[in-house]
This record gives sequence, structure tokens and C-alpha cells, in this order.
Amino acid sequence: MDSDYGLPRELSGLQKKRALYHPELPPCLQGIEVRVEFGDQTITSDSANARVICQAFPHTYGQPLVHFLRPTANVPDAQIISEHPPIRVGVVFCGRQSPGGHNVIWGLHNAIKSHNPSSVLLGFVGGSEGLFAQKTLEITDGVLSTYKNQGGFDLLGRTKDQIRTTEQVNAAMATCLALKLDGLVIIGGTTSNTDAAHLAEIFAEIKCSTKVVGVPVSLSGDLKNQFVETDVGFDTVCRVNSQLISNICIDALSAEKYYYFVRVMGRKASHVALECALQTHPNMVILGEEVNMSKLTISDIIKQIADAVQARAKQDKYHGVILIPEGLVESIPELYALLQEIHGLHSQGIAAENVPSKLSPWASALFEFLPSFIRKELLLIPESDESAQLSQIETEKLLAQLVELEINKRMKEGTYKGKKFSAVCHFFGYQARGSLPSKFDCDYAYVLGHICYHILEAGLNGYMAIVTNLKSPVNKWRCAAVPLTAMMTVKRYTPGAAPIAKPALHPTTVDLKARPFEIFREKASSFLMDDVYRNPGPLQFDGPGADTKAITLCIDDQDYMGRIKLFQEYLDEVKGIVKPGCSQDILKAALSSMASVKNVLSVISSPSFGAQTTL
Amino acid sequence: MDSDYGLPRELSGLQKKRALYHPELPPCLQGIEVRVEFGDQTITSDSANARVICQAFPHTYGQPLVHFLRPTANVPDAQIISEHPPIRVGVVFCGRQSPGGHNVIWGLHNAIKSHNPSSVLLGFVGGSEGLFAQKTLEITDGVLSTYKNQGGFDLLGRTKDQIRTTEQVNAAMATCLALKLDGLVIIGGTTSNTDAAHLAEIFAEIKCSTKVVGVPVSLSGDLKNQFVETDVGFDTVCRVNSQLISNICIDALSAEKYYYFVRVMGRKASHVALECALQTHPNMVILGEEVNMSKLTISDIIKQIADAVQARAKQDKYHGVILIPEGLVESIPELYALLQEIHGLHSQGIAAENVPSKLSPWASALFEFLPSFIRKELLLIPESDESAQLSQIETEKLLAQLVELEINKRMKEGTYKGKKFSAVCHFFGYQARGSLPSKFDCDYAYVLGHICYHILEAGLNGYMAIVTNLKSPVNKWRCAAVPLTAMMTVKRYTPGAAPIAKPALHPTTVDLKARPFEIFREKASSFLMDDVYRNPGPLQFDGPGADTKAITLCIDDQDYMGRIKLFQEYLDEVKGIVKPGCSQDILKAALSSMASVKNVLSVISSPSFGAQTTL
Repeated sequence: MDSDYGLPRELSGLQKKRALYHPELPPCLQGIEVRVEFGDQTITSDSANARVICQAFPHTYGQPLVHFLRPTANVPDAQIISEHPPIRVGVVFCGRQSPGGHNVIWGLHNAIKSHNPSSVLLGFVGGSEGLFAQKTLEITDGVLSTYKNQGGFDLLGRTKDQIRTTEQVNAAMATCLALKLDGLVIIGGTTSNTDAAHLAEIFAEIKCSTKVVGVPVSLSGDLKNQFVETDVGFDTVCRVNSQLISNICIDALSAEKYYYFVRVMGRKASHVALECALQTHPNMVILGEEVNMSKLTISDIIKQIADAVQARAKQDKYHGVILIPEGLVESIPELYALLQEIHGLHSQGIAAENVPSKLSPWASALFEFLPSFIRKELLLIPESDESAQLSQIETEKLLAQLVELEINKRMKEGTYKGKKFSAVCHFFGYQARGSLPSKFDCDYAYVLGHICYHILEAGLNGYMAIVTNLKSPVNKWRCAAVPLTAMMTVKRYTPGAAPIAKPALHPTTVDLKARPFEIFREKASSFLMDDVYRNPGPLQFDGPGADTKAITLCIDDQDYMGRIKLFQEYLDEVKGIVKPGCSQDILKAALSSMASVKNVLSVISSPSFGAQTTL
Repeated sequence: MDSDYGLPRELSGLQKKRALYHPELPPCLQGIEVRVEFGDQTITSDSANARVICQAFPHTYGQPLVHFLRPTANVPDAQIISEHPPIRVGVVFCGRQSPGGHNVIWGLHNAIKSHNPSSVLLGFVGGSEGLFAQKTLEITDGVLSTYKNQGGFDLLGRTKDQIRTTEQVNAAMATCLALKLDGLVIIGGTTSNTDAAHLAEIFAEIKCSTKVVGVPVSLSGDLKNQFVETDVGFDTVCRVNSQLISNICIDALSAEKYYYFVRVMGRKASHVALECALQTHPNMVILGEEVNMSKLTISDIIKQIADAVQARAKQDKYHGVILIPEGLVESIPELYALLQEIHGLHSQGIAAENVPSKLSPWASALFEFLPSFIRKELLLIPESDESAQLSQIETEKLLAQLVELEINKRMKEGTYKGKKFSAVCHFFGYQARGSLPSKFDCDYAYVLGHICYHILEAGLNGYMAIVTNLKSPVNKWRCAAVPLTAMMTVKRYTPGAAPIAKPALHPTTVDLKARPFEIFREKASSFLMDDVYRNPGPLQFDGPGADTKAITLCIDDQDYMGRIKLFQEYLDEVKGIVKPGCSQDILKAALSSMASVKNVLSVISSPSFGAQTTL
């Protein structure tokens, strides 16, 4: 054990008070016994590639959906586990730090110990590196005391977020065997949960008795699909960013002389930017997904912003706030192509300083056109998931500089007649990641930790703990386990994809056809011209504002698990009516109705129906 | 009136709740009547230059200190004003936006209207420009409704923060005459309050009946002296910055791979940086005042940081947080000298692009040594108070780059044996200025607004509204009015001073001999090596943490006004004992004691005693 970890530490007054907060559990998890209902076998929404996924995951594909219900729930086939032998579980932070991560560990610990005090929970210190090196810290009440409801991943730390190479997988396996683990809980985003799925498949294949469970923890909110409504940390990060963005809006309105270009962390997808836009109403938001769909080039974007500046200048407004997701750079076609070339050269082992001279004439011309600060940033080695180092590329500065050039040009030409354009740039990311988690994230993470235990107790392998109906109060939350393979897709529709076709949990981009984006679009022109800034204020833990949730979570019409349940009920009802002996009329009506249902579904599920943009 | 101002606007849930909060008033201001006690005539702490100040302000120098007391207070000489004829008052935001500014206007409005509903309060829209152009908005309950306890200066806006040239002063005077103002309240920091003092003197000289009052509102906290304990906005800004800095600390500890260089807004002085350091315990803080005192050069500072990085690497620590005040650049001797040369060339009318070629050989060599981004920033036109555009100069980036070079050099030489050094840079300023004000700032600003009314009612001109004993609850606060001239000094001990010797309210730097800095120094080595980060969390409005105040305010042993009162009491007691007719023994003892008091004081007040660093 590393002596630096798990030591009690001094907390501020507010931190102490937060450490005393105890998250509520939904009714199904409140007692010692839980009813486990095995639902239908799962498929994947990427139906065209179901076979590829099935072949890659022969042992873990197609496992059933699992619901956790109250022991008194009226579900005849469900099983109640009433013996609780001691178990040994390992837990590891794999993804980037995200507020609430500590509560997954707390929830898991609480569930394990309340079922059998002899059970053991081991935390791997230093992320996946600690997993490989068998560096553990036993999680106890004492260790947790100053980490409950606290931000960061510093209880255990994290290093690299990869368990992928044969060497890494073997090391993980050796650890699980050496420590006699019944379960391994992996906390992270899409990359880490993909790794979890692979590990589960390999463990199943070699009959290793350790079961692998994933937990959706990612501030980007891009581990999102029919089963996962949001990720731990997204709520907090959006609220801290929204606090800062709205402060900047008020500042802009007070001084009336700056355009603020604010880039927010969130990786490839623009979920954080969209949520923050709905919370704060900045003048403009440039979502990567829109740019991608409309194939906007840099000059298109610069023109759009410059036009906006010009229109506002006509109303004597020389201030504004423009929000940019960090993934934008990969959505702009020419920059994306340039990045692809650079990354290709990197993977050939060419050193960064030699890359520029090896670029194609076209890419080289673009590269030379860009300001020097961004050239350096574009040359950085890509991340472990093959994407660019988005947090390091100052797209906001690039846009601000180019807009300034454009406005100066228009000024000379006489088309822009206003005052000088002044920009101030910001990047909000690191300052939100370490925040005290919101009440929502505290509750959500704690409940997920509990579910992990029940997944292990039910002997499930290759599953993710999930909670649905999150927009409702905790007592209406539904708890379930979903095979990781059911969330996989093969082709990647997002920009920045690696040129490989392996099944994986891919980051989900913002759905431009869904309600949150529609609402944003409806208000966009008022946001642009009328300065209807909204200030949600700092994250509150008491009083008004303490219980608010992400706007996109609340207006998105999700509840997939609720619908799966309702569908099952309809089916049961229909089966109850249409039984041998029912009238010919009933049977005819049933057949004709079912035929049309079948037809509708076969049309919708054909690969040619619509363009699937969200996965 | 500009139609954009004062319109009701949509508030978020938390904003609405905040708008309903009503600050408490100290007992002396709770009734309609206030007892006004005129104390002794004031001098100035810059005793060596008292004559210069007196000559420059013949009408407003030496006015008495004024205390506001409960009507029932047992002070025989105090007067109670019982008639309240209607008055007309103008109010203007002059300084930079600072959280709580709106509450000064609310408090002033409330006091004015509760004494006579026919009185009128006019806000000047667009800062001093609005004052010159007579652009006003009548402040009413309706106008205030969505601005109570809200951040920013957007109710009225602000532009340039100067009322200084003859033209500007004449325009201000014309406005006061045209609008028949009995009072003009100027909200701002040292620059604006110096302007207020000049305006008051000129108005007194020409017998203009408008009385001028200043209010200490400045997020930098540098309008600080024996009378002013802190400024409106400082508390909020430090708390928002501390929230972000501590999030960064948690982030550093979770990922263990970055050194964060964080620069905080606060102008020349390091009050914000010191307060944030006491709230969050980062690994290092480089106060401008320390650098100044120890005459540290850039290479000294780089060596200090690199040594710290090296010492931490020996303990296998590759992360850290280093806090830098924005004024640091002016405290580093060679950068200060370079800036002075550049500003000198600017004032000769030389265009920025031609400045480098006109530098002295020494300055030119330094200039060429610096990275290009900072060269551009150093060439910016200085601010209205002659200081560099501190918010635009990325000192944190300069230090990070130079430390990286130094560590790489040591790596090559074999003296540094750790992992690669990685820095991430941040500037926290604009994102805090627009924040919802803390409860403390709401209360403080509201009370100051009330005091402004009583100052005007008492017919005082050239005064600042002040509140002391702020570390105690509101019901213990002391309310007073102090002549602006009593806060003036002539020589400037702070770097970046203009080479002129005019009396002014100068920014006060951090007192390196006072308790807050001592406490920081005692803990500095533990901060550096032990990662004892403290997370005060986001600004709270309810529950724990809502009532905390700035640490420097609470540990600074201020209460000057309390001591002035106590001194008066001692004096009265002594005079009560030593009266004609008392015994010879008593008289002898009194004389001998008083002689030694006199001697002690004359030694302390001689110009050669100690080095006066804080004013």
C-alpha cells in the first residue's frame, strides 16, 4: 500500500458538513434482500453489426437485461438471493476524475459490508497501473470518512486509463487471481467500459471466476445510450461551468466591451456545451455536431461569428459570450483532415518536429496559415483513444484571432462600422472536475455503487450498473444491470474516429433531433441578440437550487427501461386475452394488429431507415 | 435614458430566491433617526506629507471624523437630524464591476425613500460617460426588483472609470447643476475615490451645493487603510476563486501529473492571492510584496519554483498548484524596469510596433529573451492609473515556460531525475467578477448605501462611507464617515507608480508584518510539501458556509474606529480625574505618565521610524 493514500485529511466546514450527508436509496435497494428479475436477452441498437459484436464477445453477448426490484414486488419469476457469503471485490478508477467517483466506492462498500461484514473491498491505488502492480488499499469506514460526497479521485488516484494490451490484460488477470477477487469494478467512461467488456469476455473464456462490472462515470456525459441516461459527474461539471459562464455573461453586460470566447471541456461530444447553454443563455454556441452535420468550414464559422458581431454592433452592443465545446476542432472538416494526417505521421513514429515537413501540400498550406500557438498544439501526440489532445488545443483563441482579422478587414472595407472588436478567451475544464459533487451526483454514484454489489452477488459478468428515470425523485429510480455488449457499436459516426472497426462503447454525440437541441434552436436568435443571460448561481447544497438537475436530463424523453417494462406488460396483457379458446374475432383482430406492428418495426429497424447519428 | 437599462429580466430560481433576501441593518441605522457624532479633526497617516495634501485640498482637508449612532446613544454632543426635506441624489458606477455594487444603490434608495418618499435617486447609465452626458435612469423599487443581491454592474453599466481632466470635471459639474443634485455618490476603488475627493474639493471651492460621497467597492481589496477594513466584492471574488483553486488542487492530486500555474485578478496588490491561499492551501504562492521586498529577479523566482518541483519529485510527487497575483509582473525588478521604459515610450506617442526598436540596449536584450506571447502583452497601452494592463499579461505562462526550460536543463545535467514537468495555466478573474455576491458583500454594500444617505443628510462633502468591526455580526458593526483626504498619501511605495507626486488614495499592498501573512508563512513549508489542500467549496447562501467571511478580514486585528473611541474614553476619564483642585500627587503622576506617552508617540510618528510599507 502507498502510504499517501487513504489517510484522513483536514476538511473545510462545508466539506465536513457534506461528509455527513447520507444519500437516499431507491426502495428496491433499501432492504437487505433484493429481487433479481432476469428480462429478455439483449441485442444491440447497432443491429447491422450485431453479428460482428456477437463474434467478438461469444461468452458475454446476448446476456439478459437484469432488473433489481423490491423483495415484495409482484414479479413471479424473479429470484431472491438470501445467502450472502463473504466476497472479495476490487475497485479501480480508470477514466478521468469526475465529481462523484468517490461515492461509487462508498455505495459499493456500504452494500458489501451490510450484507456480510467479512467481505473485503480493495481499492487499487494509482488507477490501472495500481491494478497491474497489485497496489491496493483496503477500503474501510475510516478510510472513507473524509472522502464521502467529496470531489476528485484522490482517495485512490488514477494514472493511465487503459487495460487493453495483452500484457495489461494479463497483469489485470494475475492481480484478480492473486487477490482471489470475486469481482472487479471499473469506474470510467466509454474507453474504460469498453476495456471492462473485453476483460469480462476474456475472464469468461478462461473461466476466471472474477466478474467484471462497469460504472458510467464521465464528466463529458458522452456515455449515453438507450440504457444510460447520464454519467456521474456531468451534472456537477455543467453546474460549475454554468456558474462561471453566467458570471462571464454578467461581466460582459457590465463592462460592455469584450467578446468572451469560452471553451468547455467535454471531449468529442458537445453535451456539456449544450447543457451549459440551456442553463446560461450565452449569445452563441457552436456545437460540434451542428458544424459536422452542416459541414461548416473554418471560414463559414468565422463568417457566422463576424456577422453576429456586426449585427450586434448595429444595436450598439460590443460585448457577447460565445461558447465552444473542446471537441469542435475535430468537427471542422479541414482541421479534422489535418489532425488525421498528423496523427497518421505520429503513428509511423515520426517525431513531432519533423511532422510539418512530411504533410501533404494541402495540409501543409493550412498548417502554415494557422497561428503558431495552435500549430504547436495540433502537433501533440494523440490520446489513448486516438483522439486529439482536445484539452490542449485552444480553439477559442483560434476563432477569436480569426474573427478579429475578419472584423478588421470589414472595417477597412467599410462594411463594419462599429467600435474595435476585443476578445477575451477562457477554457473551463480543470477547475470544474475537482468540484464537490452536486447532490444529484452524490446520490446517483452512491446508488450505482450499491447496484454493483447486487450485480456481483447475482454472479453477473460483463455488465454495467445503471439507474433510469433519473429525472424523477430517488424513490422512483429504477435499478438495473445491462450487458456492456448491448451498448456497443462498430462503425463510428463521430469525427476523430480511429480507422478500425472494432466493437466498442463509443462516445454518443448530441442528438440534433432530440428535444434539448430543439429547445436551444428555438431560442438561439433571442440568445444572440437580446442578452437574455440566465445565472443559475453557484452549486448549492442547502435551500433553493440544491435539488435541481441537468436541464437536458429533465427534458430528454428517455425512460427506456420504463418503456421496456410497459412493453412487457402490454405483451402479457395481449397474451392473457389471446389464449386458445378465445373467439375467432378476437384472434383475427389480434393477428391483423400484430401484423401491422411487425411491419412498422421491420421498416424502422432496417439499416436504410434514417441516418443514425447518435451512436 | 437608455432603454436597455433597468428593464425587468428573467431570473433563475436561485437568483429569485436571492432577490428576496433582505440584509440586516446595524442597530444605529434601524430607526428613522440617527445620532450624528462629530469626532476630532482628521489628519492623515502619511504625516510627512500632510502639508502637501492640505495645500491641495484646502476646503476638504482636516474635516472631522463622523460616527453614526443610535438616537438613544449616550453621547451628549451628538446631533439628531429630525427634519428630512426631499433630496435629489445621483449615483454612478466608476470602478470595475465588483459583486455587491447593486446593493449600494439599493441601500441608498431604501434610506432615501424611507426618510422622504419625494426624494429622488438618479442612476447614471454607462458609468462616468453617463455622468458627463447626463444619461440617467430613475431608481425605483420596480427597477431594483431584479437587481437586489445580484452580481455585476449591469443595472447601470459602466464605461471608463475616470473623472479627472478639466473637461470631465466640468461635465460632471454641469450635470450636477442641471439635475439639481444635492449629492453625488461615486462607487469604486482607489482611482474613483481619488476622483471623488478632487470633485468634492472643486465643488466646495466654487460653492456648488452638490456633496460628493465615495463608497469602497473593489474586488482587489486594495482600498484598505486604518478606516477601511475591506471593500465590497473582495469577499465574493476570493470565495469564487478559492472554489476554483481548490477544485484545481483536487484535480492535481487525482491525476498527479500536472503543475497548475494559476494567476488571480487583483491588480497591483496581492490581497486576493493571499486570501485564496489561506482558504485553499496551494503548494506555492508568489506574492508580489515578497518579491518586491526581497528584490527577487525572474531567475530567482524560477529557481525557487524549480527547486520546489525537484524536492517534490524526490517524494515522487509530480503535481502541484502555484498561485500568482496578476500584479506580480510589476514586482519583478527587471520586468518592472522594462515596463516603465515601454510606458515612457508610449507616453511620448510612439506606436506599439515601434517601441521595441527604441528600447535601451539592456531593456531590449531582456525583451528579446522573453517568449513572443508576453512581448505582445507587455507592449499594451497602460491603464488609466498608469499601471500595466495586468489582466492581459500572462505571467503564469511565462513562469511555467521558464520553469520547464530550467527543469529540462537540470534533467540534462542530471541534477533532476524525475518525470517530465507538465504545466497547465489558468487566469481566474472575469469568471468571478460577475458572481452573485456573498451574504457578507450583500450586507456590507447595503449598509454602505444607507450610510451614504446619512452623510448627505448631515451635509458632509468629500467623505467616504465606512463600516468597521466587520468581522463581528452585523449588529456589532460601527458606521461612520471619513474625509477622503484622511486616506491620502503622496509618495507611492508600490511598484508601477507613476512618477508624479500628487496626493491620492493609493492601492494598499499586503502588509508582510501583519498576522495574515505571518500565518501563511508559518504554514508555507507544509503547504509546499504535504498537499494539505483545503476545499471551501462553492459559495453557499443557505446552511453551513453561508456566513463565513474572508480569513484575512477575521484574523487581521483592525477595529481602528473602536480604538479611536476607546482612546477618547481614556482621555475623558483622565480629564475627569485631573481637574483643578485635584491633589498635587495626582497632578504629578499625571504629568509624568503623560510625558512618557508623549515621548513614545513622538518617536513612533517620526518619519525615520520603521519603513512604512503598507501605504
